[in-house]
Amino acid sequence: MSTTNHAQRTTAAAARERLAGYRHRFDARFEAYFDSLSEHLDTPPLSRFTPRCLDLLRDLSLRGGKRLRVALLYEAAHLVTDEEPPGLEEAALSIELLQTHGLVHDDIIDDAPVRRGGPSTYYAYRREFPGDPRTALGLAVLAGDLAAFLSMQVLLEAAAPAAVKQGMLEVQLRAGAETVAGQITDLERDFEPLPSEDLLHTVCEYKSTRYSILAPLRLGLLAAGEHLADHDERLRRYATLAGISGQMRDDYLDLFGDERTTGKSPGSDIRSGRRSYAVRAVLAAATTAERTLLESALGDPGCTAATIDRIRGIARDRGVDDELRAAVRHYAEDAAAEASSWRPHWRTEAVSFFEGLPLWNAQRTQ
Amino acid sequence: MSTTNHAQRTTAAAARERLAGYRHRFDARFEAYFDSLSEHLDTPPLSRFTPRCLDLLRDLSLRGGKRLRVALLYEAAHLVTDEEPPGLEEAALSIELLQTHGLVHDDIIDDAPVRRGGPSTYYAYRREFPGDPRTALGLAVLAGDLAAFLSMQVLLEAAAPAAVKQGMLEVQLRAGAETVAGQITDLERDFEPLPSEDLLHTVCEYKSTRYSILAPLRLGLLAAGEHLADHDERLRRYATLAGISGQMRDDYLDLFGDERTTGKSPGSDIRSGRRSYAVRAVLAAATTAERTLLESALGDPGCTAATIDRIRGIARDRGVDDELRAAVRHYAEDAAAEASSWRPHWRTEAVSFFEGLPLWNAQRTQ
Repeated sequence: MSTTNHAQRTTAAAARERLAGYRHRFDARFEAYFDSLSEHLDTPPLSRFTPRCLDLLRDLSLRGGKRLRVALLYEAAHLVTDEEPPGLEEAALSIELLQTHGLVHDDIIDDAPVRRGGPSTYYAYRREFPGDPRTALGLAVLAGDLAAFLSMQVLLEAAAPAAVKQGMLEVQLRAGAETVAGQITDLERDFEPLPSEDLLHTVCEYKSTRYSILAPLRLGLLAAGEHLADHDERLRRYATLAGISGQMRDDYLDLFGDERTTGKSPGSDIRSGRRSYAVRAVLAAATTAERTLLESALGDPGCTAATIDRIRGIARDRGVDDELRAAVRHYAEDAAAEASSWRPHWRTEAVSFFEGLPLWNAQRTQ
Repeated sequence: MSTTNHAQRTTAAAARERLAGYRHRFDARFEAYFDSLSEHLDTPPLSRFTPRCLDLLRDLSLRGGKRLRVALLYEAAHLVTDEEPPGLEEAALSIELLQTHGLVHDDIIDDAPVRRGGPSTYYAYRREFPGDPRTALGLAVLAGDLAAFLSMQVLLEAAAPAAVKQGMLEVQLRAGAETVAGQITDLERDFEPLPSEDLLHTVCEYKSTRYSILAPLRLGLLAAGEHLADHDERLRRYATLAGISGQMRDDYLDLFGDERTTGKSPGSDIRSGRRSYAVRAVLAAATTAERTLLESALGDPGCTAATIDRIRGIARDRGVDDELRAAVRHYAEDAAAEASSWRPHWRTEAVSFFEGLPLWNAQRTQ
């Protein structure tokens, strides 16, 4: 047991290091993209609002997080080749621009003032038009739309063969459409008093796994010249397992995480009424009285830290924390096992990355 | 003069007839697209909200207007060939799905309850979630996003050569991005007390001409195998002139139109604070006292019919109606003249359509 844990920790550490390397390089490329954007985009000469919109998209995009998607993309290509095939850079830009699109519109939908440690695009506009929320809303909707078009347009600039480019567009347009369906189902979820775990898996699959894990894997293999149809089932299995593990970990941290580590106060899912994996597990395990407490806190933005504390206590009494941590590890190990089965087909170093990534993610519950 | 008018009327009547033919055929094809959409789109099995979203997109799309864009597309191909080249059907679907995307988001931005004689998607959702405007807003934003992705995805299904498909995607993605820039500039326009006519031309060009006229022309020629670069200047000239003429006509009708003909009560631009060509012309020609009256009516949803009547009276006293009608005709004739110059290069019948269309549009001020 301790040997396995040690091996897992080593694989996980290696994955983490590679991740940091991709991030650094991509961030410079992303900045260069925005610097030269005016050459690619014909904007109205007399408009001051249009450059402001591009500035806000740039700010949000460059405040980006871990760039996990970019790492998945590059490592997927490395499954096949140690060279960097053409089209990979544009695929990376496309992935992160699609993410920017999603964040801008998500923050409208959630009425969220903060994103990536700065103002959300919606709230940046609300601050610029204090007496005029409709203009702010309109400009934020349009900013998100623009990011969506740009995310597809950038793929057309890839120096890859026509068939590869077309395949990439197919992957990204599907990812975009399926993510919308996932977001719709996410809104639907919160109308269910006790959503089934299957529904939560569905939301996770469509809302995040498809564009965050599966699409980068597909794009990387496409760029490297692989035929997707030959591998799609294994990619899907890996993506689904890693996706559930990652989402459960996020949901766990939102309720049980240490504010000093996570950087945000716990319970935001409860306050926003989001029936996460953690919230669902507490609802399912609680007594009637306990459930009534949680139900009344759900969707109450003013719910106090003391109430969140009480709910966390209930959750621990019912063993929800241990159960969730075990599930996070279980799905991560299944994902890693799936990646291990790729060893005969694909390059060892990249396979190790895909093994390590979910394990590293799973460790981040401690 | 009367001979010219008679010739213009004949050309215009022919254009109108061809228009009706395209509309009928396209509407059937568009319905079939929505009927088979579930085969192309992977949606979450447990979701009820996702099919509802698709239904609303279908309803709005099939309530479509004159399908002018589709006619422009088909006639652009007919400039080159009397056959129907592959890819034209998908281009038509893409054009109208992009339009649906724009309408859904526009009606959020304008807070508009009605569209194409039925509820806007936003207000359809508001009616379904009466106590929950945020969910309604979120679902409407997502519905518009989905239409945008679908509008690009459908192009990938075209049985056209790879280079043509890629060219079409380029055209539509540019059109999408430039339209967003136009909508942003449109919001900006209404912060100017007296926007210049140049700013109005810019809004018209980016907000509607690019995706409504220029993109269909480009797509039709692409499908027919033409190299766009050889023709783009003449397409742009035609599109810009026809676009300004059409927008001025719409703005004219909004102030001076007969409710029995237009089907809507006049003055909606004034009530929504839109500094249209007509509003701008009145502002520019009015006395200080008259301008104060108009300024106080601008953006007041409760502005009475009597006030609109008074403003219309002022406009007529200042000759704004005659001036606008003359400008509509002037731009239409310039567009028709541009089309006439295509006669040596392209097929006569289609050239006649492009001559007739702006003239027919210009007649609709009477």
